[in-house]
Amino acid sequence: METIGRYSYEQYLKMVEDFHGSQAPGLILGGVMVDYAISRMPPGVLFDALCETAACLPDAIQLLTPCTTGNGWLKVVDLGLFALSLYDKYTGQGVRIFVDPEKLKGWTEIFNWLYKLKPKKEQDKALLLAQMEQAGRAILSERKVMIKDQYLGKTSKGAIANCPQCGEPYPKRDGALCLSCQGGSPYGKE
Amino acid sequence: METIGRYSYEQYLKMVEDFHGSQAPGLILGGVMVDYAISRMPPGVLFDALCETAACLPDAIQLLTPCTTGNGWLKVVDLGLFALSLYDKYTGQGVRIFVDPEKLKGWTEIFNWLYKLKPKKEQDKALLLAQMEQAGRAILSERKVMIKDQYLGKTSKGAIANCPQCGEPYPKRDGALCLSCQGGSPYGKE
Repeated sequence: METIGRYSYEQYLKMVEDFHGSQAPGLILGGVMVDYAISRMPPGVLFDALCETAACLPDAIQLLTPCTTGNGWLKVVDLGLFALSLYDKYTGQGVRIFVDPEKLKGWTEIFNWLYKLKPKKEQDKALLLAQMEQAGRAILSERKVMIKDQYLGKTSKGAIANCPQCGEPYPKRDGALCLSCQGGSPYGKE
Repeated sequence: METIGRYSYEQYLKMVEDFHGSQAPGLILGGVMVDYAISRMPPGVLFDALCETAACLPDAIQLLTPCTTGNGWLKVVDLGLFALSLYDKYTGQGVRIFVDPEKLKGWTEIFNWLYKLKPKKEQDKALLLAQMEQAGRAILSERKVMIKDQYLGKTSKGAIANCPQCGEPYPKRDGALCLSCQGGSPYGKE
């Protein structure tokens, strides 16, 4: 494995460390997965991304594709599965890349990591990353997918008004009060 | 406004374009907000971030703080409010920065943008960005917050097993099948 996306492996490691804060194994394997997925998209197709776990993998997508949390092209549906898909943002046709359990034989440290068989401090991280680099796409599989309609397109927030309780601008479609004042506030008493 | 975080304003604009795909107004204002929030955190405090909208603002947080979607230090609670908080990841004490409607008088293009009073193509983007740069923190307010316990810390996924239906590794705590096979799959028929 010499490149990940349009970067050298070393460049990618540096980007991971800068953005994510550490060379997390999930971003190394994730990088290989995203690179694989991109290679399966027909040239010129504008694609969105769907990530099936909230852990690590979203950052590999954000680093290697135009899709980010804030621009709405990356959606995280946290199913706890280490898998992602890229799909045509208009038709929903795409490809899903996942770690294939049947292909993990012999890749002991990757297996131990994925199935959480060793506490983090007992993991041999150097061996784990080396196995990931060596394995590349050999432990992955792909399948075609069609994304459900509900994930396609962006929904407009519609008209904005000041919430009569907190006074801040909120989407009127949410009701008479903003969602925070309706009980959704993440803040408690100080 | 000469700097945003540890970057010059021009450097930040370039980062926004590279990461987010365009110089979206929400990331310009968002950059000012994140910079403001960081300035209120005591030195040395390890902080997490909570973003109250899914649109734009999460990317300003990801660019300017160590908090990302994939490392779990950024949480998006989509209340449709253009506000964010940074908080001590152990105690939950923090600061919330929000656009203050009472301070918007005179900032006509920012007002029009925030309340969506003009279709995007009728916005004067140059004026909007100029007003945001000129206004800086003058249109923002802050308040102390205490984050609810449920947002503190990371929850472990616990033991991993292969889903008896799809065969992929999933967190056993989710039940007899993985969440995707339980009906949560984002994919439909091809």
